[in-house]
Amino acid sequence: MKNKILNLLKESDDFLSGEKISEVFGVTRAAIWKYINSLKEDGYEIESISRKGYRLLSSPDILTYEEIKDKLKTEFVGRKVYYYDSIDSTNKMAKDIAHNEKEGVIVVAEEQLEGRGRLGRHWESPKKKGIYFSIILKPQVPPMKVAKLTLLGAAAVYQALDEIGINSQIKWPNDIVVNGKKVCGILTEMSSELNMINHVVMGIGVNVNLEENDILEDLQHKATSLKIESKGKVDRKKLLAAILNKFENLYILFKDGGETSQAIEICRENSAVIDKEVQVFSGSSKRVGKALDINEEGELLVEFDGKIETVFSGEISIRGIDGYI
Amino acid sequence: MKNKILNLLKESDDFLSGEKISEVFGVTRAAIWKYINSLKEDGYEIESISRKGYRLLSSPDILTYEEIKDKLKTEFVGRKVYYYDSIDSTNKMAKDIAHNEKEGVIVVAEEQLEGRGRLGRHWESPKKKGIYFSIILKPQVPPMKVAKLTLLGAAAVYQALDEIGINSQIKWPNDIVVNGKKVCGILTEMSSELNMINHVVMGIGVNVNLEENDILEDLQHKATSLKIESKGKVDRKKLLAAILNKFENLYILFKDGGETSQAIEICRENSAVIDKEVQVFSGSSKRVGKALDINEEGELLVEFDGKIETVFSGEISIRGIDGYI
Repeated sequence: MKNKILNLLKESDDFLSGEKISEVFGVTRAAIWKYINSLKEDGYEIESISRKGYRLLSSPDILTYEEIKDKLKTEFVGRKVYYYDSIDSTNKMAKDIAHNEKEGVIVVAEEQLEGRGRLGRHWESPKKKGIYFSIILKPQVPPMKVAKLTLLGAAAVYQALDEIGINSQIKWPNDIVVNGKKVCGILTEMSSELNMINHVVMGIGVNVNLEENDILEDLQHKATSLKIESKGKVDRKKLLAAILNKFENLYILFKDGGETSQAIEICRENSAVIDKEVQVFSGSSKRVGKALDINEEGELLVEFDGKIETVFSGEISIRGIDGYI
Repeated sequence: MKNKILNLLKESDDFLSGEKISEVFGVTRAAIWKYINSLKEDGYEIESISRKGYRLLSSPDILTYEEIKDKLKTEFVGRKVYYYDSIDSTNKMAKDIAHNEKEGVIVVAEEQLEGRGRLGRHWESPKKKGIYFSIILKPQVPPMKVAKLTLLGAAAVYQALDEIGINSQIKWPNDIVVNGKKVCGILTEMSSELNMINHVVMGIGVNVNLEENDILEDLQHKATSLKIESKGKVDRKKLLAAILNKFENLYILFKDGGETSQAIEICRENSAVIDKEVQVFSGSSKRVGKALDINEEGELLVEFDGKIETVFSGEISIRGIDGYI
């Protein structure tokens, strides 16, 4: 009911009387008054003038379904949203509910208390300054093809940033960088049998409106935010919806047969890695080579001492001006 | 306390007086009487004679830690047991608790209400007639090597059956057959990041003391039980402990580097598949070929029209006398 009243207020340019709202939904005016107060608590600015009624002045900067749905063009991605003001980790929650949910369902949180990056690393998620969400997916492809899904996510974030006027690059396989510094990371996790995927959870974290002092000092040489780089606040709702829109387009091609050529093309053309000197880590070993290309399997081709090898999912760092990032 | 009293009774050949037990553990004789009754409810046959005390006559056929521990030679596999009289599925429970448990922890149930085989198929689990359990594992190997773990499980079951005098064969990759009919299936599930395993859950179901009428009629041409084939009841406790013992030996070699040569050798030498005509299913396609060998990667080598291909994790059926099984 609260969302219904919110939608009515959003659709109306002028004041809406309590009587009118009461008529439309068949609830008492006292109940309406309660819902309006609850909306105000959520951050909605609602003017109420006796005899005239209620008018929505502004909506808060929150990533609920109500706030992004007008911008969504998707069929199923993001059409059901689990929204949390604060959570331990969106990936953790998504994994917990994945068994009973359809693909495309997302878990969004304004803050993660135990946000995680790859290999169990901490991911800083300050409140309402970033976008932190996880998508539940159930593609009909062999488990071995799942590595490619991360590239779909990376390509979608690249395209979404492009749409809002921010030029970025993709640091294969799971980071997005702006001006050489990380603004987004992707953590793909999978539950599978030997030859069948149960579900995939793809977590995406974007540093949107973080200030410099929101970024740990010893990470400042390699991490940044969209606000810092574009010198202005970025609309989180628009960006989240854009990522979901772009992702669904790419995912529809992938979900039944594993088609990824479009996503890989985007990752290749906007790569932060290709033609760069890279360090490739696997386990405790580290080797230096030159990244040449991303092949059709989504693997990175790296030249080591004149010999070309494919890197499947190792971790890499790129040689920057100030050393490897 | 109940288990402590049980252990004391087990260690004692003669009657133990309530006074004595009370002295050892510092609890009242009334409390002891309650614990004894609870043990009786669990199926322990305990004789009690006034002035003499309590004596354990027999233990029930249940797969609790108390009943298998004397037979365990393992360091960590099976050293913590979640035991259920009835459960939906041991794999499901193991996946739910895996995050917070160490590797080697097992979930055992006397009955599964929603037991599953591969690809979501039903696995019939009649009460106390089979062994149904799942092992939580956290190997430090790349996710791609996990397929081999199923072969470790298969090899361990083969060895355990051999130890109790039952000759079986391994139907690559996840079934054990006796006289050409299935007696055991393995369902390996994994939760992973791109290049790191979160955890693996390996579920093993063995048809131990099922009678012919416990097996669905339309499965009787391809499924059987150890009791049916060996013409006698099999000690479930002994068999479960043997599987865990054998499995740990093979797993210790695997867990840090992925070493599997011993397990693959067992699967190869006792294969129900090698040199047989097989149907290989992948998706909706079906091809007929001849199984030649299992390679070092644990893949099946199959000859189709003179060309040798490796089969990674497709499903196969073997040509038997009465058609494919």
